Amino acid sequence: MSDEQREVDVVVVGAGAVGENVADRAGRGGLEVVVVEKELVGGECSYWACMPSKALLLSGHALAAAKRLPGAAEAVTGTLDAAAVLKRRTTFTHDWDDSSQADWVSSAGMSLVRGSARLTGPRRLEVETADGTVTLVARQAVVLATGSVPVLPDVEGLATALPWTSREATSADAVPPRLAVLGGGVVAVELAQAYARLGSTVTLLARSALLRGQEDFAGEIVAEALRADGVDVRFGANPSSVSRTGSETTITLDDGSTVVADELLVATGRTPVTSDIGLETVGLEDGGRITVDDSGLVEGVDGGWLYAVGDVTGRAPLTHQGKYDARAAGDAIAARAAGDLVGEAPAWSRYAGTATRTAVPSVVFTDPEVASVGRTEQQARDAGIDVKVVDYEIGNVAGASLVADGYAGRARMVVDEQRGVVVGVTFVGQGVSELLHSATVAIVGEVPLHRLWHAVPSYPTISEVWLRLLETYGL
Amino acid sequence: MSDEQREVDVVVVGAGAVGENVADRAGRGGLEVVVVEKELVGGECSYWACMPSKALLLSGHALAAAKRLPGAAEAVTGTLDAAAVLKRRTTFTHDWDDSSQADWVSSAGMSLVRGSARLTGPRRLEVETADGTVTLVARQAVVLATGSVPVLPDVEGLATALPWTSREATSADAVPPRLAVLGGGVVAVELAQAYARLGSTVTLLARSALLRGQEDFAGEIVAEALRADGVDVRFGANPSSVSRTGSETTITLDDGSTVVADELLVATGRTPVTSDIGLETVGLEDGGRITVDDSGLVEGVDGGWLYAVGDVTGRAPLTHQGKYDARAAGDAIAARAAGDLVGEAPAWSRYAGTATRTAVPSVVFTDPEVASVGRTEQQARDAGIDVKVVDYEIGNVAGASLVADGYAGRARMVVDEQRGVVVGVTFVGQGVSELLHSATVAIVGEVPLHRLWHAVPSYPTISEVWLRLLETYGL
Repeated sequence: MSDEQREVDVVVVGAGAVGENVADRAGRGGLEVVVVEKELVGGECSYWACMPSKALLLSGHALAAAKRLPGAAEAVTGTLDAAAVLKRRTTFTHDWDDSSQADWVSSAGMSLVRGSARLTGPRRLEVETADGTVTLVARQAVVLATGSVPVLPDVEGLATALPWTSREATSADAVPPRLAVLGGGVVAVELAQAYARLGSTVTLLARSALLRGQEDFAGEIVAEALRADGVDVRFGANPSSVSRTGSETTITLDDGSTVVADELLVATGRTPVTSDIGLETVGLEDGGRITVDDSGLVEGVDGGWLYAVGDVTGRAPLTHQGKYDARAAGDAIAARAAGDLVGEAPAWSRYAGTATRTAVPSVVFTDPEVASVGRTEQQARDAGIDVKVVDYEIGNVAGASLVADGYAGRARMVVDEQRGVVVGVTFVGQGVSELLHSATVAIVGEVPLHRLWHAVPSYPTISEVWLRLLETYGL
Repeated sequence: MSDEQREVDVVVVGAGAVGENVADRAGRGGLEVVVVEKELVGGECSYWACMPSKALLLSGHALAAAKRLPGAAEAVTGTLDAAAVLKRRTTFTHDWDDSSQADWVSSAGMSLVRGSARLTGPRRLEVETADGTVTLVARQAVVLATGSVPVLPDVEGLATALPWTSREATSADAVPPRLAVLGGGVVAVELAQAYARLGSTVTLLARSALLRGQEDFAGEIVAEALRADGVDVRFGANPSSVSRTGSETTITLDDGSTVVADELLVATGRTPVTSDIGLETVGLEDGGRITVDDSGLVEGVDGGWLYAVGDVTGRAPLTHQGKYDARAAGDAIAARAAGDLVGEAPAWSRYAGTATRTAVPSVVFTDPEVASVGRTEQQARDAGIDVKVVDYEIGNVAGASLVADGYAGRARMVVDEQRGVVVGVTFVGQGVSELLHSATVAIVGEVPLHRLWHAVPSYPTISEVWLRLLETYGL
């Protein structure tokens, strides 16, 4: 392939889960779509995040669950087989080979161009491929789905100390004897627990509370669980320097103490990939997030041709929510091309990711799990909502007491008193991840509390916590 | 205590979970309540059904779940410890001692009378207690919450062959080497699997398909799972006679074949307890169900003083749904006494068990679980609904594939095309019980399909099956 130019309806930059979804929906809407990817088709989630991290966690969780039940506990005499877990993880990442996902792109009627894309002006991109430069011209839309990358904090010596990011931690082929984890968010707590259960001696260095942005009790319960797994959880930890000698990394904290580990995982946050993709050629600034409306249309660009979806927008850095926004954007692009959608996408229509504003679910797959959707108490108050908060200890629910001896967990329901609806729910506990969708449906469906009263949880399930929350509320 | 007469606001006959709930709600409404119980306070569910059966099942399920995950499987070298499971079961039944539940009745401000009650006329009952006859006169309401009992089919020799019912099966203090189970419903399949995993050689004798009344695939998948657990599942089995010699029971089928077992569990159905409770003294017939309206008010009795809730009404023979109806009845009794409710209880008000008509959830706690709510395809068609049905193999959902290697399960969504809402959902698979409440909220909340589209399942959970169902539907 020499230098060439192609004109198509839609160009999607980035073939992660989000890019795939926007491409798929635009394609189903009758448009000709090209997807550009510089790494693996399927993206971060498939190869270095959601899938491998869960594969690293779930075997350990299943074993822990069995050990909490007399009768089963006696049958568990061994420990988690780390090699078997790593091997299973690798089957989920297809050994980091994306051919099956690339095949899916073709089978869905789309073209894949492998290379680095950058905008060169309105509706135009240049892609550097292995075989030369391809110029793409989009008749209808260009969609930026370039995702995000981990950020290393500015600590002396860190960048040259070969730290792990989530990529190395999810793709490692051995379990380090000693692992230090810098950060207190989802990636930090999930991987700290995964490696602790796989046999690492783990030190978690958190600046402040764990899982900030969630209800406070979530991070507190998870911290307790991590400690029970042997993780040395240190709060108020600020590294002042990092150095690596041979295979050993030493982290020096600002209180003068040091932590020595075989690997250091840095999980202090991610930043949108907006540099070096030619944003300046269409009047936007490099770096930072790309601001979009609920249909994914980029603000500040004339002509309605530039869209962005997923992490790059900063709307909700979660695969499922990015995919949801992507479906809306793909449908909107197709509908606008067909003249079926003129102007702004109506709220709650298929063309608008309305739920991303107020009803984003998330699950932290630690044991116990943290499953939450909508607003926390604080977020609801900050939004000026007339809030009533109801808490309930999940261990008091019959279904929970059956699932595990000594079940520990808590639920919180945040109610908008004026509208009489639920605006936020958090469940922390073993086995609550599948319970979350009930809350998401309640919030998104704007089901009044007095109607929720009639949604009867089956006995004895953990879901009965809903009845307790509503009773405690006063129904 | 000699013979005495007491006048109170409300008399509740039966202190099972359902009776407790109606009493509690009426009491909270300011009424003086007496509860009468001839066996254990807490009833069937606490001592011989929901709780002990789940305790018998869940340790085995946890072990099976661990064995489906490489890394965990290697650590499971032993087998389920039956003695430990039986012991744990007994802690949940408090060794069949109801003192803590009796204490709850007192602490909630209600009185408990232990004995057998029968109506002697409008608003009047006589209770035979250990210390004599107590006559109770109810100013506001009498509530019959007498529940149901197992029915033995009319098979020669069965009644004298000391068969197990669910009571003996859930309270056994040893695992029989050979167990025959007669029946194909929830009790039959749950206890067949429980005992198979506890070490019994189990033969299940079903007349026709398993789990009739559910979607067909539910019983089919469960039959497959039982067979994988070593249960000899025989369909078209009609016992013609049963005989017991010493500790051995022989079941002869109408095809001439025989099954020999140490115990025979008969789980062929239950019947409401309406005999010998004095119904004839208030113009009702003995036997059969007691017909009630959505507030629990018994039809065919003048004066609006007689209520019935739970199994005795035949509305929905499930603890949670009986409790729901009981809360509505208790609230209605209090509201009518206060003059706050006149005439029929409005649909979906707190005084009406409206959901029991169309949105009853149920979970069969086998492995895989069968979780369903609302109407099956057939029930929806029979109700004249313009039906569209969508099926999806749950094993294709990323979250399911992570939870278990070789995950097998299926989901069905039944849509009312005219109203654009879901009217029934069935999930079959490991770990779907907590997923059910999302469907219950969707159905009870009458959340339109186009709004459900915005309820995003978290990735990677099994709940993502919702997205697949909606995509397959055509959204």
